[in-house]
Formats: sequence, C-alpha cells, structure tokens
Amino acid sequence: MSLARTPDPPYFAVIFTSRRTAVDDGYGAMADRMVELASRQPGFLGVDSVRGADGLGITVSYWASEADIRAWKANSEHRLAQNAGNARWYEHFEIRIAKVERAYAGPR
Amino acid sequence: MSLARTPDPPYFAVIFTSRRTAVDDGYGAMADRMVELASRQPGFLGVDSVRGADGLGITVSYWASEADIRAWKANSEHRLAQNAGNARWYEHFEIRIAKVERAYAGPR
Repeated sequence: MSLARTPDPPYFAVIFTSRRTAVDDGYGAMADRMVELASRQPGFLGVDSVRGADGLGITVSYWASEADIRAWKANSEHRLAQNAGNARWYEHFEIRIAKVERAYAGPR
Repeated sequence: MSLARTPDPPYFAVIFTSRRTAVDDGYGAMADRMVELASRQPGFLGVDSVRGADGLGITVSYWASEADIRAWKANSEHRLAQNAGNARWYEHFEIRIAKVERAYAGPR
C-alpha cells in the first residue's frame, strides 16, 4: 500500500495506537472491512496503517471535519467492531483526535 | 515497547509516515539514536513508532508546543539524519503537524 495523499491543511486526523491481544477470531477480516467501510464515509480523505511483528499498531485516518469523525464513530457496523475490539482484540489502545495544521512531503 | 502515555490535550503531534528504500547503511542505529535524542528535547511528551514488513512506517511523536517541534527539527544532529533520510533512506515520506484536541484510551 502506498502512503495516503491528503489535500492541503487544515483537515483532521484520528491517531489510533494499539497493542493487540493474542486473540485472532476474525480480526484481520474486520480490520480490512473497516478500511473499506471508512473509505466510503463522507469526509474520508485517506488512511495509513501499520502493525509491527511485536503487536504494536498505528492507524492514522484523515477526515475533512470533526463532524465526519463523529459520524464514522457512530456508524452501526463500526460500533460492532468497536465492541469486539474492546472485548477481545485490544489489550490497550489510545485514540487521539487532532487538527492537521501543516504538512509537507519528501524526499526533497 | 508500550504505547506512549501523554498528558491531557491540548498538545501537538508530528505524524511521520514513510516508505523506506532498500538501503540500510546505518538506518536502524540512526532511528534508535533519534528516539533517544528526541526524548531529551524540551517539550517531548512521547513517541509511538511501527514499521511493517512491507517497508511502510509510521512514527508519531508528541510535543508540548509547536516551538518545541521547530527546535527539534533544527537540532544539528537531527538535521544530519534528515539529510541522510532525504538522500538514501526514504523513497517517500509525509510529515504532518497536528494539534491534538481530545484523546481517550481503552479498552473500556
């Protein structure tokens, strides 16, 4: 997968850092489905996602507005995934909502 | 490594997404050294970093202020690493500076 290309700031980012449990139980299929579902939400601008061999993962999704982020959080299929994540897939996670103020790309 | 624990917002995040070249040439040692050096900078709050098997990496560092981010960017040893990164370690990178407005942790 290549890196997300986003429009000029300002826009919003959801920084989701997580440590997985050892439980699989459909996790991979759910993760793929959530990317597919998010990408069809209003205001979705892109996503970058990496999980390391040690179980630490970072997913950053980019959105046009905070209202778009709230709508994505409230999506009914996404809520089922959130419940499963809380119950069995994540040992620990942190979610940060941030306003991207400037951005640049390289190498230059 | 465990996830970064940060104070209550607001604070700032530098979201660094990258795709590596196939060139190693000291990359791992430099990456470790930059985390060590950043962690001694004024205003450093934490860092989360993951690189996947496919060469895609995400590093998010957290800072008390934008002035702290500018000072870290201007650090002389960090500038040498930036030059090497531009010249040989990164095929493509994106840097986004964002203000974290809210945050929460789980599972709940």
